[in-house]
Amino acid sequence: MKYPNALLQLVRSLARLPGVGPKSAQKLALYLAQHAEAAETLEQALRGVRERVRPCVRCGNLAEAELCPVCADPGRDHGVICVVETPGDLLAIEKSGEYNGVYHVLGGALNPLEGIGPEDLRVAELLERLEGVQEVILATSMTVEGEATAGYLAELLKARGLRATRPAYGLPVGGALEYVDEVTLARALAHRRAFSE
Amino acid sequence: MKYPNALLQLVRSLARLPGVGPKSAQKLALYLAQHAEAAETLEQALRGVRERVRPCVRCGNLAEAELCPVCADPGRDHGVICVVETPGDLLAIEKSGEYNGVYHVLGGALNPLEGIGPEDLRVAELLERLEGVQEVILATSMTVEGEATAGYLAELLKARGLRATRPAYGLPVGGALEYVDEVTLARALAHRRAFSE
Repeated sequence: MKYPNALLQLVRSLARLPGVGPKSAQKLALYLAQHAEAAETLEQALRGVRERVRPCVRCGNLAEAELCPVCADPGRDHGVICVVETPGDLLAIEKSGEYNGVYHVLGGALNPLEGIGPEDLRVAELLERLEGVQEVILATSMTVEGEATAGYLAELLKARGLRATRPAYGLPVGGALEYVDEVTLARALAHRRAFSE
Repeated sequence: MKYPNALLQLVRSLARLPGVGPKSAQKLALYLAQHAEAAETLEQALRGVRERVRPCVRCGNLAEAELCPVCADPGRDHGVICVVETPGDLLAIEKSGEYNGVYHVLGGALNPLEGIGPEDLRVAELLERLEGVQEVILATSMTVEGEATAGYLAELLKARGLRATRPAYGLPVGGALEYVDEVTLARALAHRRAFSE
């Protein structure tokens, strides 16, 4: 027998999400088909995100207004910018509770093999907002791509006479920043060091 | 900092789904916030299921018409009814390729501790469709509740002079039927036996 078409569509769109395998997609779709309220709540939440969440015009973080909550907060130190790859990395640092500056979300890391160059990231936007900034923390991931991106940005910043730092090692090498535990992240940020090759 | 409200709503509605923990919910929500197309596809699929998928009026399976594809198929043997707990169990049996009868979806199993009695399941609907039926296969799960449900139904069927069978053991005891591999399921169905205490 065949799945109802609508259900098949739902299984397919769930299976395309990261970390959702075909079995999980089927299980979730069956659950949603039998729990109309959960399906409707999720549907509305998705519409809400699509209609209201957009990139912060300054830093690229997820926002519901022109500026994200961090950029709009006068209590944050706008003289320190922490550069991260994704909004998920930003959230991980926020949870560490150790950081009071602002952010810049690149939207990824340099990856020549996949054809991702500086023009595909929010690099130009970073260089445009350096006035009055004393320090730029390069908190890209501790992967080959993240290290290369930090190195590239450090050169650009040095040429502009700016101090570039990198969170202390202590972060697990090769890991994605988003999944680091909060204590390790807090310690790594507290012990950040001047950038050097 | 706070999540944008819309994003928080999405994290919450994802975290309420079975098998989705808080970390996965956050990861999925961030992905969906950054991939508008995936969010929209999922949103439309959810709406499609909510608007078009409903229980088959005869067997309780998920359907897009009054009758589900199995009940509407004249090539199936309508003289044999296989009773299952959920639409997921039904799909698992369909995948085994071993069964050509029709189904009856109870909507769960008897569970006195949680206050689930026969009136909460589609038991009356089963009894109403027994005319012309030669055999009822009781393919509820091999759990305490599933066994009790099969026993309860077997009594009702015996009182009506009907043959009740149970799939052969070979199914893992204590396991949910939905996740059994197809070969085991096919063998268990082929070797089904008369129901006895």
